[in-house]
Amino acid sequence: MQTVEQLLALFNAHLQSNQPGKEPDTLYEPLRYFLALGGKRIRPILVLMSTELFGKDATEALPAATAIELFHNFSLIHDDIMDKAPLRRGQQTIHEKYNLNTAILSGDATLVLAYQELMRYEAAPAKHLIKLFNDTALGVCEGQQYDMDFETLSTVKVEDYLEMIRLKTAILLGCAMQMGAILANAAPDDQAHAYQFGLKTGMAFQLQDDWLDTFASSAQSGKQQGGDIIANKKTWLLLKTMELANPEDRTIIADWLTKTDYNAAEKVEAITALYQKYKVDAAAQHLIQTYTDEAFAHLTAIEVPVEFKHQLQALAMQLLVRKV
Amino acid sequence: MQTVEQLLALFNAHLQSNQPGKEPDTLYEPLRYFLALGGKRIRPILVLMSTELFGKDATEALPAATAIELFHNFSLIHDDIMDKAPLRRGQQTIHEKYNLNTAILSGDATLVLAYQELMRYEAAPAKHLIKLFNDTALGVCEGQQYDMDFETLSTVKVEDYLEMIRLKTAILLGCAMQMGAILANAAPDDQAHAYQFGLKTGMAFQLQDDWLDTFASSAQSGKQQGGDIIANKKTWLLLKTMELANPEDRTIIADWLTKTDYNAAEKVEAITALYQKYKVDAAAQHLIQTYTDEAFAHLTAIEVPVEFKHQLQALAMQLLVRKV
Repeated sequence: MQTVEQLLALFNAHLQSNQPGKEPDTLYEPLRYFLALGGKRIRPILVLMSTELFGKDATEALPAATAIELFHNFSLIHDDIMDKAPLRRGQQTIHEKYNLNTAILSGDATLVLAYQELMRYEAAPAKHLIKLFNDTALGVCEGQQYDMDFETLSTVKVEDYLEMIRLKTAILLGCAMQMGAILANAAPDDQAHAYQFGLKTGMAFQLQDDWLDTFASSAQSGKQQGGDIIANKKTWLLLKTMELANPEDRTIIADWLTKTDYNAAEKVEAITALYQKYKVDAAAQHLIQTYTDEAFAHLTAIEVPVEFKHQLQALAMQLLVRKV
Repeated sequence: MQTVEQLLALFNAHLQSNQPGKEPDTLYEPLRYFLALGGKRIRPILVLMSTELFGKDATEALPAATAIELFHNFSLIHDDIMDKAPLRRGQQTIHEKYNLNTAILSGDATLVLAYQELMRYEAAPAKHLIKLFNDTALGVCEGQQYDMDFETLSTVKVEDYLEMIRLKTAILLGCAMQMGAILANAAPDDQAHAYQFGLKTGMAFQLQDDWLDTFASSAQSGKQQGGDIIANKKTWLLLKTMELANPEDRTIIADWLTKTDYNAAEKVEAITALYQKYKVDAAAQHLIQTYTDEAFAHLTAIEVPVEFKHQLQALAMQLLVRKV
């Protein structure tokens, strides 16, 4: 069983020696630029770890891991356009560095390249992998659409938000885990547990991300503290507070959401105080813990020797306990 | 062997009863709108005809035909953004009717839906179909990139233009033909002939399209006569004329290409006169005929009874002899 660091090195070396495409450079160079921005490569590492969990060599899963990473990058390239994001990992996004058309088309090509990677397998596993991949890809598109739709709604139900992050974020982690299980010929029950481990970890991860945005200092999170509050992002924290708040506090929130001229620190402080008044910070931590417990229960249920599970446990803990 | 009209009715009924997706409506409704704009459905009909050519029932090819039509619509939705096109088939494009983000994301989902259609087949043919589809999809992206790149170049070689239309237009027709052949278990040689028939027909079709833009009246073509000339589009006619022209005439062309204040009819007349002076109108017709002959030679080489080929011959003639 290889560690996160070992698998990351294995994956990055594979990606480096399988640089996508040749010509035209105007199509593929932006993609190579974007892939080289790096990132934690959580999703491909999950594919590789899951393959090892079920007793197969991680190298066999490199094409599937590459497919997952390419898909993730495709979705980031297009999401960055939709979110008008100028930066990704501290560097210019493709539509900023090049232009809109290049970002659309390089993204499209990246999605096709992901499918090409999955075609490196024999017909039977390829079909299984692509079916799962299709359902996941469509779900991620649906999640992104819900996320955009939510921006224009005055309020969103907490359960609709959870469904959105399930689609937009969590199912890709589930897909990554199940792909490894498929490649290692795991039993259907174990495949389902692997998927659920990824999915629940993804839910906990996204909620933790929301929590950190508000409650971790910039030094801890690497992001502006309260960025979501300033941007009026309908996070679980905000939606849950709106659900619990008395009419008076709800009006205060609504006022902050519509104000255009305000002191950012003051807004962050006021909204954070309401989160604390209604104890949604603790409720969020409780929900994160619930998802984490569920994830670990699925990992426990997988019928392989317990020592095979240590690396996945370590990765999940590393992902979820980011506040320390 | 069913006629174009019969297969069109079969395909449209199938598409109608397999409306893509359910929720969120904000993602799938734009796609349903776009698919309902119609069009000639040449590509899916080629899939169905090719299947019948090799002796299988067209209904078995409906998912593959749907995949090809979905892919074609995906590329139109994204191309319309890149070309800033306000209209498609006389109706608003998705980015105009809805917005940019909807057009990007609905396009993405459409591409995934195309892959979902291909997964309706057994593992072995599905793998064969998806491999061909991947190569084609990536080629179409490359062709679109070349087309965009050409806009910013002062000159483009005639052979580079032909390579661009091969990728952007012709290979999808080749892919459609080969998919039918794959589904009917045609021999590899026959599959290759079917592909080449589609490819060469596609080349002839695109060159004919360019020719009609300049030499057919608006009443004949349904488009503004000389639209390509007015838009400075680097068509085969223009590039070939630039290649053949003496330095003086080349300067005249270059002047027209850079002028911003001019009488459109005058420009169309001047450039058309040069096309005729260098006989590129006749040369284009000769090249179209060459591609058509090659297409028909490949159809002839396919080892099935000659009467099975009549519907494809009729369709190709209908596509290519649009000037009458």
